Amino acid sequence: MEQSPHIPPARDKLLFTPGPLTTSLTVKQAMLRDAGSWHYEFNAVVKSVRERLLAVAGLAPATGWEAILLQGSGTFGVEAVLATIIPPNGKLLVLVNGAYGERIVQMAQYLKISHSVVRTPEDTPPDLVAIERALAGDASITHVACVHCETTTGILNPITEVGRIVKQHRRVYIVDAMSSFAAVPIDFASTGIDYLISSSNKCIEGVPGFSFILCRRADLMATEGSARSLSLDLLAQLKGFEKNGQFRYTPPTHVVLAFDQALKELDQEGGVLARAARYRRNHQVLVEGMGQLGFRLFLDPKVQSYIITGFHYPADQKFYFEEFYTRLSDKGFIIYPGKLTQVNTFRIGTIGRIFESDIRSLLSAVGETINEMGVKTNP
Amino acid sequence: MEQSPHIPPARDKLLFTPGPLTTSLTVKQAMLRDAGSWHYEFNAVVKSVRERLLAVAGLAPATGWEAILLQGSGTFGVEAVLATIIPPNGKLLVLVNGAYGERIVQMAQYLKISHSVVRTPEDTPPDLVAIERALAGDASITHVACVHCETTTGILNPITEVGRIVKQHRRVYIVDAMSSFAAVPIDFASTGIDYLISSSNKCIEGVPGFSFILCRRADLMATEGSARSLSLDLLAQLKGFEKNGQFRYTPPTHVVLAFDQALKELDQEGGVLARAARYRRNHQVLVEGMGQLGFRLFLDPKVQSYIITGFHYPADQKFYFEEFYTRLSDKGFIIYPGKLTQVNTFRIGTIGRIFESDIRSLLSAVGETINEMGVKTNP
Repeated sequence: MEQSPHIPPARDKLLFTPGPLTTSLTVKQAMLRDAGSWHYEFNAVVKSVRERLLAVAGLAPATGWEAILLQGSGTFGVEAVLATIIPPNGKLLVLVNGAYGERIVQMAQYLKISHSVVRTPEDTPPDLVAIERALAGDASITHVACVHCETTTGILNPITEVGRIVKQHRRVYIVDAMSSFAAVPIDFASTGIDYLISSSNKCIEGVPGFSFILCRRADLMATEGSARSLSLDLLAQLKGFEKNGQFRYTPPTHVVLAFDQALKELDQEGGVLARAARYRRNHQVLVEGMGQLGFRLFLDPKVQSYIITGFHYPADQKFYFEEFYTRLSDKGFIIYPGKLTQVNTFRIGTIGRIFESDIRSLLSAVGETINEMGVKTNP
Repeated sequence: MEQSPHIPPARDKLLFTPGPLTTSLTVKQAMLRDAGSWHYEFNAVVKSVRERLLAVAGLAPATGWEAILLQGSGTFGVEAVLATIIPPNGKLLVLVNGAYGERIVQMAQYLKISHSVVRTPEDTPPDLVAIERALAGDASITHVACVHCETTTGILNPITEVGRIVKQHRRVYIVDAMSSFAAVPIDFASTGIDYLISSSNKCIEGVPGFSFILCRRADLMATEGSARSLSLDLLAQLKGFEKNGQFRYTPPTHVVLAFDQALKELDQEGGVLARAARYRRNHQVLVEGMGQLGFRLFLDPKVQSYIITGFHYPADQKFYFEEFYTRLSDKGFIIYPGKLTQVNTFRIGTIGRIFESDIRSLLSAVGETINEMGVKTNP
């Protein structure tokens, strides 16, 4: 974008972030259409997208599950779930080990939903004993929310083990799978998930503009009357789709067309397992290469996802993150700007339409950059 | 979309709707980029878009006005204003003469905002005497909301006359200018608008994905502490832009790039007045041609906007709207499906990247269609 719009760059800078991601040209080209947002042709695309999302999740048709698309970012989707399904006398338990867990707490505060929190340090998975104790000790807790891949650090939280406890206590289980869905296989049955939220611009490799929620129709219908916002009323959104196949309010038509194409390309790649394999390989190459360059992982590899990876700043005083970031950008590589963790770390994403060769190019650029900066590491 | 994605149609069907609209190819091509949503290059585009929106509104820089972009459709933007700025003890007066006014009432119900309503029939502008009486008689009313162009019918409400009364009574004035902004010149000073809402896919001719709100920074800052939703917290959204130039949560990056291009093209066309002239001409040609075909206007021309125009169904029993709609679609013309009014009308939009010649093509198609259907009108 630094160039004049009349001289487009040879290629966009590659995005090594937790999203929006680098997408395929064909996904973006699907947006070169103007669709009538209430027209039957567009409605057919919406219907197909909703059905195929269930297939990506491994949820068979006619099992009562629904995929509901909602305008806005992933955050809007998570807040819509809380704002719609938790009754006035409900109480939410939030498991927090990063910024996205904290954001759910913030939502509960805004929405005046009674809540409690089980917090663990950023590098530590949720404390299963503390969750068990919280649920056993507080019968007023009706819902539990957990972030699957906490992109603050890249930690992958054990949603199955958590789910087992939540279900033993018969509470409603909400999983924010924003950056993991379609990249980390999730077994809905054994995990006990009741509501899962993700978004258009993550591992399906579409572009940003809507979130989607997977849940059982009957569960959602039973929450009637609690919604705290018209725009974020997930139940009304589902009823809208059922009534006439339409979004209640103007959908991001172009973004939906891109997502339709992205779903086709996920299929062409071989589905979730094939995509998981590519991302895992990206991550392995990154970790090995960064290790050779002398960078230390922030997380224990046992809890590290292959979605996004945090590295400690080098100890050398010559390392300024802003300079490192800008020099990488000048070379055509955008990593996540700034840190979310409490200690000094930076993060590199390995999802999106990027391949092992792109990771290797990034690694050379990182090597060059620390040389240019005169930063010493301990390879 | 009925075609295989591998054999794209020669051209998309033209949209004669209140939006999403037909846009230029160059606007859509601006989406063939993947931008880093928190990257400084993208932030520079966001900053420029926010500044140019103020210029489109005729608001000089450094006068304390801000343009705030919010993910989601226009409805999300209207609800964000209500959810953020009205204090717990505030009361909203809503002027209603169509579905979009009713939607504001619905939002107040969801948000548990105390409110009253001045309602007029769908073909009748707000009753100024009733507004005066409502404000004089109820000191607890703090805010007044009015829809500028009520696209239920296409009526253009007199926001200046309403604003004069609202300001005499020193209440906060909220104008939903979704389908009028950038097409109907609005003088903020004489109208007394405090908060104006519009969206990316209306008369700026961008694609759908966000709304924007124009307001004075100081006014918004003074509302601190009332927001009822995290995602819809407009004040926090502004603070986010001021802190680091970023959207708080993932923005629809591609849609923002398209909007940037759309603003350039608005400028190239000659700004709001030139665009207004094109739309007015579209509307005139439509009304004349439909009159010649024997269709009657729903509204008195004195209150009819040039944005969207409602026509009565022909009296002939052979007229089925669904058939009429589908036959027009098969010929490449999409009008608004279904009616929002209480009487039997259909609506044709005259905004977006469409020209007099497109209106003439539509008129021939309408003529052919009623012939095919054997519908008699009284030309």
